[in-house]
This record gives sequence, C-alpha cells and structure tokens, in this order.
Amino acid sequence: MCRFLAWVGSPRYLEELVLNQEQSLVEQSRNALIGKTPINADGFGLAWYSQRPEPCFYKDPRPAWSDANLKQLAHHTQSGLFLAHVRASTGTATSRNNCHPFGMDRWCFMHNGQAGGHEQIRQQLDGMIPASHYTHRFGATESEAIFLIAHGEGLDTDPIGAMGRAVLQVEDLSRKNGAIPFMRFAACWSNGEKLFAARYASDRFAPSLYYRKGRNGVIISSEPLDAEESEWLEIPSGSAIETDGFEVAACPFLEAGAQGRPNAA
Amino acid sequence: MCRFLAWVGSPRYLEELVLNQEQSLVEQSRNALIGKTPINADGFGLAWYSQRPEPCFYKDPRPAWSDANLKQLAHHTQSGLFLAHVRASTGTATSRNNCHPFGMDRWCFMHNGQAGGHEQIRQQLDGMIPASHYTHRFGATESEAIFLIAHGEGLDTDPIGAMGRAVLQVEDLSRKNGAIPFMRFAACWSNGEKLFAARYASDRFAPSLYYRKGRNGVIISSEPLDAEESEWLEIPSGSAIETDGFEVAACPFLEAGAQGRPNAA
Amino acid sequence: MCRFLAWVGSPRYLEELVLNQEQSLVEQSRNALIGKTPINADGFGLAWYSQRPEPCFYKDPRPAWSDANLKQLAHHTQSGLFLAHVRASTGTATSRNNCHPFGMDRWCFMHNGQAGGHEQIRQQLDGMIPASHYTHRFGATESEAIFLIAHGEGLDTDPIGAMGRAVLQVEDLSRKNGAIPFMRFAACWSNGEKLFAARYASDRFAPSLYYRKGRNGVIISSEPLDAEESEWLEIPSGSAIETDGFEVAACPFLEAGAQGRPNAA
Amino acid sequence: MCRFLAWVGSPRYLEELVLNQEQSLVEQSRNALIGKTPINADGFGLAWYSQRPEPCFYKDPRPAWSDANLKQLAHHTQSGLFLAHVRASTGTATSRNNCHPFGMDRWCFMHNGQAGGHEQIRQQLDGMIPASHYTHRFGATESEAIFLIAHGEGLDTDPIGAMGRAVLQVEDLSRKNGAIPFMRFAACWSNGEKLFAARYASDRFAPSLYYRKGRNGVIISSEPLDAEESEWLEIPSGSAIETDGFEVAACPFLEAGAQGRPNAA
Repeated sequence: MCRFLAWVGSPRYLEELVLNQEQSLVEQSRNALIGKTPINADGFGLAWYSQRPEPCFYKDPRPAWSDANLKQLAHHTQSGLFLAHVRASTGTATSRNNCHPFGMDRWCFMHNGQAGGHEQIRQQLDGMIPASHYTHRFGATESEAIFLIAHGEGLDTDPIGAMGRAVLQVEDLSRKNGAIPFMRFAACWSNGEKLFAARYASDRFAPSLYYRKGRNGVIISSEPLDAEESEWLEIPSGSAIETDGFEVAACPFLEAGAQGRPNAA
Repeated sequence: MCRFLAWVGSPRYLEELVLNQEQSLVEQSRNALIGKTPINADGFGLAWYSQRPEPCFYKDPRPAWSDANLKQLAHHTQSGLFLAHVRASTGTATSRNNCHPFGMDRWCFMHNGQAGGHEQIRQQLDGMIPASHYTHRFGATESEAIFLIAHGEGLDTDPIGAMGRAVLQVEDLSRKNGAIPFMRFAACWSNGEKLFAARYASDRFAPSLYYRKGRNGVIISSEPLDAEESEWLEIPSGSAIETDGFEVAACPFLEAGAQGRPNAA
Repeated sequence: MCRFLAWVGSPRYLEELVLNQEQSLVEQSRNALIGKTPINADGFGLAWYSQRPEPCFYKDPRPAWSDANLKQLAHHTQSGLFLAHVRASTGTATSRNNCHPFGMDRWCFMHNGQAGGHEQIRQQLDGMIPASHYTHRFGATESEAIFLIAHGEGLDTDPIGAMGRAVLQVEDLSRKNGAIPFMRFAACWSNGEKLFAARYASDRFAPSLYYRKGRNGVIISSEPLDAEESEWLEIPSGSAIETDGFEVAACPFLEAGAQGRPNAA
Repeated sequence: MCRFLAWVGSPRYLEELVLNQEQSLVEQSRNALIGKTPINADGFGLAWYSQRPEPCFYKDPRPAWSDANLKQLAHHTQSGLFLAHVRASTGTATSRNNCHPFGMDRWCFMHNGQAGGHEQIRQQLDGMIPASHYTHRFGATESEAIFLIAHGEGLDTDPIGAMGRAVLQVEDLSRKNGAIPFMRFAACWSNGEKLFAARYASDRFAPSLYYRKGRNGVIISSEPLDAEESEWLEIPSGSAIETDGFEVAACPFLEAGAQGRPNAA
C-alpha cells in the first residue's frame, strides 16, 4: 500500500501539498493515518507538467523525508498539474524503476493497491503488455503493467474505460493464477490536461481515495491533507472522477465482483 | 534517537540478531517499542571482527529493511563480535558518512543520543578533535566527534574512563553554547576483544540500554529482542559495563549533572 | 561490454585480485585495456562462497572505485571461490537488479556481451524463461535471461552444455527479431565447486577471455591482471573450460554461425 | 579535477548544454579532452535560478551519464542562469554533500582544482570558516570551504575581490601546512544576476577555463563544447570575468606566487 496526491488548477509550488500540509505527502510517508501501512518509505516520485507535452519525472528509491533534492525541487517548481507518490512495497524491489508515477508519452499514472499473488502471475502479466509498449516496461510492479495494458486498451480516447478494462484483465489473471485479494486499486492518472482517478476492489476493501475542490483547483489524495473533514469528499469504491480543476465529473468505474459489466465489455 | 545491538561470544550469523528476532534490529528500524522515535530509517551500519585486527564495516544510508545487500551479508557472515546500528537522524544529513558504527584502528563505536544544540556547537566540536585524528572525521555527527575525542583521551588503555571524559567535554560545550538536553548518551564500543557499553544523560532521560547474558555470549541492545523480560537487564543511567562474552563487569560511568566526578578527572 | 574475474583455489582475500593488481578489476572499471569500452562504471558485483551452499552477493549500481563498502568487504573477506564483475551497460538501466553476478540456488553467473537488438526481443526473452524460475527474474538484462534459461536446460547436470543451449536459443531469437551482432558472449559461472567459463560470438568478435593457472589456484579474467603475458592463456572463441583450481579442462562450447552443433542438440 | 559549465542569457533548456553538445558536460564526465582526468564520474550537480531569489539545486553522487533524473530535469527545465558540474574527487568521499555547486543564500559556487595537502589542513580550514556560516558547511571539500570563507570576505559587495582573498588564505594555509601544488583554481559563481569566473594557480598549471559569447548569452566552460575553436576564448590564469549575458568584463584576479597583491590586501 502506498500514498499519493495530485493537483490540477492554478500553478502552485509542489511543496505546498507535498511538504507543507498538516498531513502532507511527506508526513504520510512516515505516518499515514488511514490504512494498514503507516510507513511509506520505499521510494517516491513526482511528475509535473510544464512547457512540454510530456511530464517531467523525479523519482528515487529513498524515503521522501530524507531526500534533499526533493525538498529543493518541490520548493522551486510550480505547476498547474502534478502527481506525487510515496511507496510501500508489497514485495517487488525498492528501486527507481518501481517508483510511481509511471510514464508513457503524455501520460502518467500512479497506483495504491495490488494484484493478489503478483509473484505467481508476473510472467503472464509481462506477456499481456502490448508488444509495442514493452520498451516502457522498466520495473516489475503490477501497477506499471496495468498502466501499459490500459494504453493498449485505448487510454488516449477513453481514459476511464481503458483503465477499467486493464484492471479487469489483471484481476481475472489474479483470480485464475494468483491469490486473494485479487485486486485492490486506487489510482490517479493524467494526460496533462485532466486528472482521472478511480477506486475499486475485488472485495470490500478498496484503498482510500478523496478529493477536495477549492477556488483554484482540485486536490486528489489518498487521505485528507488537513482536519477540515467536511471539505474532503470520498470517492466511492467502483467510481471514477475526472477533473480539469474547474469541474469534477463522476462516473461508474467497475462493479466489485461482477464479470460482465459495461466498461469491461 | 537510534537503535543498536551488539554481540560478543561464540561466532554466530549476524542475521540471527539483526533479522530473525521478534524485535530484531531491522524490526526496530520500522517499529521501535521504546523511546519516541519508532522509525529508525536514516541509514544503518554493521561492524564485525574476523581475521584482521580492524573490524569490517558495511554501512548505507538506506532503510535497513529494504537493503538487499544487508540481507545477504547478515545471512552469510559469522562473527564472535559484532555491532549493528539503525539511525534516526537528529538533524545531520542522511549519508553514509553519518552512519554508525564509526571506526578508527581496532576500535568501533556506535551511539544513540545527542548533544543539545549540536548545530551551534559543531565548529567548536570539530576543533576539539585531536589534530592527528581529524583524518578520521568523515561526517558531521556529534557521535563521531565524541568517539574521536575519546581516542585522544586514551581509549586504548582506559576504554571506559576515556569515553567518560569525552562525553563530559562535549556536554560542557553544549552547556555553554548549545541547548538542552545537553547530553543524552547510550553507546557501545569495542576493540575487537571486549564490548563496552555505557548509559548516561545530563537530565533524567538517558536513552534505554539492556543486556542479556546467555550460555554462549552476551547481547547488548537498545531494547529487548524478545518478550522474555526477566532475561534482559537494564543498564542503569550513569553506569557502564564491559564484557568478553563470559563475564560482565559493571562500573560507574558518569554522575548526572555532577562536575568533578572521578572518571572525569 | 563489461569486465570480470573469478578465482578458484586456496582461500584468499578478494582485494588481492579486485583491488591490488596492476590491472585489477577496479582499475579495469576506469581503464580497461582490451575492447571498446574503457569505462565500466555502471555498477559492480561480487559473489563468494563460504560456509553456506549458496554464494553471498554484494552488488551496487555505483562505480566500483568509489564504493567504500566494496573496499571494506574485499579487504576483509577470504574465499576459495569468488566472482567479481564491473558493468558497462549496453542499454538497460543502471540498477542493482541489473548488476552481475546473478544467482539462483547454488549457482551464480556473470557475463560480458550482448544479444543484438535486445530491446526488440526483450518481451519474448522474458517469455522464454521457465515459469518456475521467473521469481528469479529481477532485472531486464539478456544476461540474466540466458542464465535462467540455462537453468531450465539442466545447468545442474550439464553445466557447459546447458549454457550452450541457452546461448543458442537467445542467439536464434536475436537472429529472427533482433539485430546484429546476434550474440557476443564471454561468461563465467559456478556451482560453488568449480568455475566454468566460455567464449563465443555469432560473428568474429567474441569478447576477450583469459585464464592463468598458478600454484594455488586458477584466475579467469576478461583481461590479464598484470604484464606477465606468457602466464595468461586466451580461451579461444567457441571453447569452454572448467576448473576446480587444480586442473583446467577445455572442451568445445559452440561453433560460430553453425546451427546443428553437438552441444546444442 | 572536475569539469563544469554555466550559462547566462535568454532562458534555455539545460539539456542544450548539459547533454546535447558534441562535448557536452555529460560527455565530459566520460571523456574530458583537456587535463589529466578524463573521467569525472564522482557525482554531479545543477543549480539554476527561476522564480525565487535562491537557486534550485539537484545533486547526486552517481555518474552524470547514468542518472535518469538528470535527463528528465535537464530536458524539462529552462533557465536564464544556470551552473552545472561533474566531479572527479581528489580524495574526499563521493557523497552528495561533496557535490558542487555549493549554495548559500542567493549565491552558488563551483570549482575545479584543489588545495595541496588538503587532508593535512582540513581541520584548520574548517576553523577558518566564519562561525555564522558553519551551518552551511555540509561536506569536506576545500571548494566548499573557499566559498564560505569568501562569504565572510564580503562576496555580496565585492564578488571577485572576496573570492580572491579567500583563495589566498587557503593557499597560504596550504603553503604552511599542506603540500604542492598549493592552489589550483578555476571556478564560477553567481548571485542570480551575473556569472563570475576566475582562473588561477600557485604554479604554472591553472585548470582550463573558457567562455563563448553568443547572440543570446554567454557560456563559461572548462573546455569548449564544440570544435569551433575560434569562438571560444581562454580566460588567462590570474584573471577573472563577470558577465550578465550581454557584456563580459575582465579584470585581474590574483598574481601567481605573489604575496602582497592588490586584490588580496
């Protein structure tokens, strides 16, 4: 299990959310309040959009709290759309290649969750990645595999549907050859224009996911960044949202345990 | 605050204490039970004695739990005298040079504690290190400085007295130009033949320190490695022990707050 | 292209070969004399056998010359059978998981060379690894893949033949979907009792490989460690050797460009 | 010996100079053409000015060529004033704290050279740093010490004179207690408005230093970035320049071997 947050709206310094909140992402790396894994210190990553269509990535396998470069970059970088993640490994190595967010073309993606029995299904998962996208397979996580499979499902034209189909495929693989819990999924992804986020699980325990709409933009986060609870809305399991920082549109993502649901057709 | 443990006795694999106990050192790096700092993930270090008179060091600024080399080395290395430390920085950088144990000649040293106002007194502390030992000043911690000052005080011939005099000097400096708490000190050091350990504070809050005598040797540890509480003896604040693995001899170290005590003459 | 060396014979300190020779392995990491890649600074690794049947690994993505732990471990560790490698990446990431030697059970393996067009064939290569060995697939190199495929071909009972069949399979894949040079291969591997080494290429440019037999054992090395040229014997391309430190037995490995050769049956 | 470059002028992507030149800084990290140290792979650093008065730093002890974050940041970051450095250690540890550029307030500084016998004079050098600046003493290099001493000499109001006085003090210390060469110095520093650079040695071997004035700004570099030799002007030993990107003003820095020169009064 991991923690993450994302921002879309007016440009702001990354440190405002990554470092300076009561329950900032770096604070969550030491002391997450929701979920079973208080320590998320197996690496971290930032992705932000600026002048170029592709995001800029800064990722490192160290704990977020002790990385001097992270403090520098978060203090000096402004962006109107950024994602940030702190990792708690569920088994794969602590290495830069396994740090979220993952990127391909304009897109980036970060995930909190797992596919049960990942180690047993890893080779098949690698085989499911579209051949033309395998040069983007750098690490060993199921998260990165889901992202690349979603690309093959048409992320560009159907950002939420394609992600749902990828999640379903990996869940089905886990159901056949893996182990429970087959799928736990809270994720956030972006093409540089909008943020997309979804929450889902094959059982009743979808990882936490919240958002907050302010005057200047929208924050999506694994847990509230401050104690103003009324401001933070929980994304229900099985649902997705998309937002450009002004509007937040919700839609169904996947039904738990169902096999023939619309998005998965 | 940090956590550490040491062994002197029959040769044994390092992993038996570093990894395989209920409350092993690696477990303490995630979840220390005693003291205010449950996470000790700002680097770690091992020092073990084998064929050569000087110890072998393996140190890294990563969290102990995610270092694949540590698992390998602890699984394959046997030693009759070793020290191991996980660090929680009290301010100085997370870098290999600040990882304990520190070494000079046959000696190594590790510490849990601090000199209050370290940043204000650091330049003077650097000036107090004997000139001939400054080539061994690699990092910026007060711990390393205490060790090198103790060398100048005659560690070779008076291992406990010299350490006491070094601690006093640094406490006095903190009292003049630093801040409370002037000195918190739990430490363990060795010349390859015996382990020495001492506990002390300028106030009432000396960091925890325990030992356990078994059939094959003696463990010294920041906290008990298992729940058999009757087996673990607390070293009282102001006291020191020395042990070759067979006998444990206790002696006074330093009196809290006193200025003209015997060992400090 | 990379550089490596190995020793089997009387126990000796690793530093004697890794650090203290005229053209030691660490010297080769800065300034290799043979081949096109003078700098081999994309990580390094050691594997040595001691009490346990499996080797102990120490690997890191830093340049060998600047790693303080390497100096310590090589200075303090003695072994009668060890392998050491410095890496020059041919494309895959500089990460610990891509550092040689690779290990599985009692075996370890290190390689200098490449399969042409590796990035185009990587997914198929991953698919060729026996399913039961995929948990040992940690990185992305063709070297690790060859090693795991060789395991599937029966490394335990036929150490040289199995390796030959693995190399052929990967060469054939490169020939179909990769690029020239289809295969360049100089490698050394061990089960803890003997060293095996082989040299081969699909063209005329097999990477260099030498050995030297002394009173106390045998060194295998990418290039001579000193200027006493008469002492160093070149292993011919297409050949393999095996040695227990006393005897060196040579045998055919693979014929360049042939398709139906004995060892590949 | 190290390599560095700097830019002041119209905002441009860092990668244009750091990565994309014939003899870019990353190329110099593998294969410097001038000087005795072709490999400069003991860490690197970037400092660039953007919205805030202080520069943003990204530094890491890895070789510049294998750092994925460096490629990302240099590809995505534009700045009108930046400095970049690749390090070849002359003795001190390969650690982030020893990577250039060094920073204090608005200023940053990078250096190629050494004070002879640094290890013998290091403690005295530490003592020469103004007490109020010792919190900025993070590493162990003479370079960082010179920078902090220059601050004490009035860098803010007299950027070139203060640096000269600092260099002289350190040279004098080396002359008394160190070793030849007493001082080798090529450096570049900035307050966010201008670039300053100077070249000097206590003997005849000042490290190389060049600049090139173009339509949009000025590059300062340890060696020409391309083969258009007529465009690159060498800064003579004993001289300094300052430039805002439009004008380049030259002035005397220090006379070699003299003791009572104007700037050193």
